[in-house]
Amino acid sequence: MPPSAAMQLRIAAYDGESLHLHAPLAANFNDKGCAFGGSLVSLMTLAGWGLVCLRVQAAGLAADVFVADSQVRYRAPLWADLEAEARLAEGEDWDVFISTLRERGRARVTIAATVRLPEGGIATEGRARYVAIAKG
Amino acid sequence: MPPSAAMQLRIAAYDGESLHLHAPLAANFNDKGCAFGGSLVSLMTLAGWGLVCLRVQAAGLAADVFVADSQVRYRAPLWADLEAEARLAEGEDWDVFISTLRERGRARVTIAATVRLPEGGIATEGRARYVAIAKG
Repeated sequence: MPPSAAMQLRIAAYDGESLHLHAPLAANFNDKGCAFGGSLVSLMTLAGWGLVCLRVQAAGLAADVFVADSQVRYRAPLWADLEAEARLAEGEDWDVFISTLRERGRARVTIAATVRLPEGGIATEGRARYVAIAKG
Repeated sequence: MPPSAAMQLRIAAYDGESLHLHAPLAANFNDKGCAFGGSLVSLMTLAGWGLVCLRVQAAGLAADVFVADSQVRYRAPLWADLEAEARLAEGEDWDVFISTLRERGRARVTIAATVRLPEGGIATEGRARYVAIAKG
């Protein structure tokens, strides 16, 4: 994928519940020198997408995963490397998602994503819905 | 800005009311070969941001423009070059935005953005709020 190569993103951590993606500020700054909004939302969207893909894989299923919609709030400028954390949104349930995907061949899940400021607090936060469609 | 250079974006059209930004699919595809969600939302966000900057300039003002929040809906996969169109959202008014910026040194405006499918219909649509803060 050319866009993620250009962002120089890498997986920073994964523990089964949350996925952290990292991208250097040097490849992702805007006209003001702080983190570019498009890179922030891309990183958050990819973190959520990756988390859903990993949970589908872990359940022994094969599915295409698509983002359906997203909401993002930019709270404070970020003058440091970007790190997005994705985890299941409140009120969602991995077991329900996986069993629905297994039974119906299609399921939706909402993921919350956050980019923190190095000094504490939140740079950007949002949520996105993903659709998984079973393959074959 | 490294991200927009990587996306290979260019201004496709501007008529004072709407700004069109174009980016080639070849630099912006995802794991499925269609347009990458992050590139779509980046292009839409930049189109809105550029439109606000151009209107601020046209009014003879100098301001920094920030994106405050955004909502995006991915309706259909796009297998062609990306072209985002940004225009004022319904219920918004450029005159109010500019006069508020002039009087208070700060103003908000909501912009609607759309990426169309070449065969007709909508690939992605959304809206974002931008804040302009007068300089100096």
